[in-house]
Amino acid sequence: MKIDHIGIAVKNMEQSNALFQSLLGSAPYKQELVETEKVLTSFFAVGESKVELLEATDPESPIAKYIEKKGEGVHHIAFEVEDILAEMERLQAEGFQLLQAAPKRGADNKWVAFLHPKSANGVLVELCQQIKD
Amino acid sequence: MKIDHIGIAVKNMEQSNALFQSLLGSAPYKQELVETEKVLTSFFAVGESKVELLEATDPESPIAKYIEKKGEGVHHIAFEVEDILAEMERLQAEGFQLLQAAPKRGADNKWVAFLHPKSANGVLVELCQQIKD
Repeated sequence: MKIDHIGIAVKNMEQSNALFQSLLGSAPYKQELVETEKVLTSFFAVGESKVELLEATDPESPIAKYIEKKGEGVHHIAFEVEDILAEMERLQAEGFQLLQAAPKRGADNKWVAFLHPKSANGVLVELCQQIKD
Repeated sequence: MKIDHIGIAVKNMEQSNALFQSLLGSAPYKQELVETEKVLTSFFAVGESKVELLEATDPESPIAKYIEKKGEGVHHIAFEVEDILAEMERLQAEGFQLLQAAPKRGADNKWVAFLHPKSANGVLVELCQQIKD
């Protein structure tokens, strides 16, 4: 297991891209629109992990709702796993609450599934697995 | 630069150690008391990074105040840098607000310094550098 990325909710992608470029000392290596989640994402490489900025493209986006409630900041932590279905089954058996029954297609060519923050110490945890094309 | 660790504020270390052991599939590799910050920390290895759980040991601890205000969850993100003094100077010149003028000794044998979340998109950013003994 490794930290795949840290997802950060931002209001203004242009300003936040500039801010994180300045902080991390490198430019984002890609931007990607995830239409199902109504978010624009921007990725920065940091060692073996990434920082993913998330900007809502619609007031109904989960990111718009998150910012309305909690302000900008860390939205989720994603761990890369080798077998997401096996991990979902294992974690459910250990008492974690999953936010969906099956993995969804996320940004960055990944299968993703989330654990409810209430079952994970207030942290929205994403599990992700590379999609093998 | 790499993600050194993700700091997570928890109310009950014993319960949270068990929870993260279950989530991450491995036991914490060390616990450490940081008396200056009035916190007990617990570290899990995740790839090249760590998850650091933080429990207040005193109601005046910054972690106690954080939980009171925001509840349990991600408290800070730490990036490892090679030269913390140079990074502090660089980031201040780029407009980031530092929470202290000089690095402090933190957990895990590190010099640490924090950026104000207001200047970093709502994220409490820690810079850290290994102390060479």
